[in-house]
Amino acid sequence: MTNPTAAMLVIGDEILSGRTRDANMHHLAGELIGRGIRLREVRIVPDVHDRIVAAVNGLRAENDHLFTSGGIGPTHDDITADAVAAAFGVPIGIRDDARALLAAHYARTGLELNPARLRMARIPDGADLIENPVSAAPGFSLGNVHVMAGVPAIFQAMLASVLSRIAGGVPLLSQMIDVGRGEGDIATPLGALAQKFPDLSFGSYPYLRNGAHGTQIVVRGTDAGRLDAAMVELSRLVGRDG
Amino acid sequence: MTNPTAAMLVIGDEILSGRTRDANMHHLAGELIGRGIRLREVRIVPDVHDRIVAAVNGLRAENDHLFTSGGIGPTHDDITADAVAAAFGVPIGIRDDARALLAAHYARTGLELNPARLRMARIPDGADLIENPVSAAPGFSLGNVHVMAGVPAIFQAMLASVLSRIAGGVPLLSQMIDVGRGEGDIATPLGALAQKFPDLSFGSYPYLRNGAHGTQIVVRGTDAGRLDAAMVELSRLVGRDG
Repeated sequence: MTNPTAAMLVIGDEILSGRTRDANMHHLAGELIGRGIRLREVRIVPDVHDRIVAAVNGLRAENDHLFTSGGIGPTHDDITADAVAAAFGVPIGIRDDARALLAAHYARTGLELNPARLRMARIPDGADLIENPVSAAPGFSLGNVHVMAGVPAIFQAMLASVLSRIAGGVPLLSQMIDVGRGEGDIATPLGALAQKFPDLSFGSYPYLRNGAHGTQIVVRGTDAGRLDAAMVELSRLVGRDG
Repeated sequence: MTNPTAAMLVIGDEILSGRTRDANMHHLAGELIGRGIRLREVRIVPDVHDRIVAAVNGLRAENDHLFTSGGIGPTHDDITADAVAAAFGVPIGIRDDARALLAAHYARTGLELNPARLRMARIPDGADLIENPVSAAPGFSLGNVHVMAGVPAIFQAMLASVLSRIAGGVPLLSQMIDVGRGEGDIATPLGALAQKFPDLSFGSYPYLRNGAHGTQIVVRGTDAGRLDAAMVELSRLVGRDG
């Protein structure tokens, strides 16, 4: 049983400058894990053509899916669609069905479909549109690359549409135990347990709360029975050491 | 005038699984921009040795500084120090000064400096320690790579220490204007303005608020006079179109 893999590419100076705190990555991560799709890498790059092209080509080759966010609006710094077309080596131009979506939306809202807005109908050849129920301007899927907007409400709607069309894997299950002391107290038995259950992953996440150290241990895997067995042993280890 | 460049590498399955929402990236971005250091890329990779090594070597070659967060605790999934040593091709072992820091801390807190905790004194040859005022276990700087903890309070303290030692650049100034309508209305004049001020960067950030579209325009540069001149023109453009 293999689970599909994915990467995410966030395109936007605003994240790298600290102006905006990205919200889409965390949303995507949560959606993918429930569907058994492993998010293996996230990259954030600025609005620079060559950097986007290189990241798209690197990440799409290494993963079953690449999800991008940002850079598909009407302004001069929205260059994602052109960069993705360049990455695939395909032409890009205004597409009739995308233009029709925009024309209907702006007719409804009373705004002008001016040349800047018409740029949002530029779609690389061979792509499938991704519906935008919020503001009409579509995203697109080209090969295994899914190009979506950066505005969180639109990103989430587009992602839901994409995820309804792609195959997931065996859902990854997880169980968590909160240990009221530092990682160092439990690291050695935890490491031994991880070796005993090589089919599961054991994450150890230290935290500070009111000046006190604690640790959350998260065990993940696809077999509920194995997960239960590991949790029984883990509880015993943690209890016995306590 | 050139500004130093930086990248960030976040190491942690917990971010990619959606369990934890990363906070360190946003903090780093804000700290760097005020010092005139350009954050050019962020990558998030899982706790996998080869992936960390490859990312460290790629990002340290392309930037003046690489900041990492995560993976330097006492458990089996804390493999960052070994991966950074491997990336540089240098040996790693327990270092006396790091051990002394841990010994003093655990003597003070009444906890045992067991073998798992002693792993946190493993430091690659040639590195400088980064102080950890919260829980003693140090980070380290090796060449242009600064290796820090993932727990936000510790990451922030370590980063402050590193930033006090490295050179910044001309601070990047920014001004923002909030336009109460969609990007498409202002995209064309904004693009023309961006061409007129090639030394500045113009970011356009759409938002949805109570169902209404708006746009924030952020202008960035190092010359306050040029920034003011651009803002005067921008206000005029936006006002005239409104």
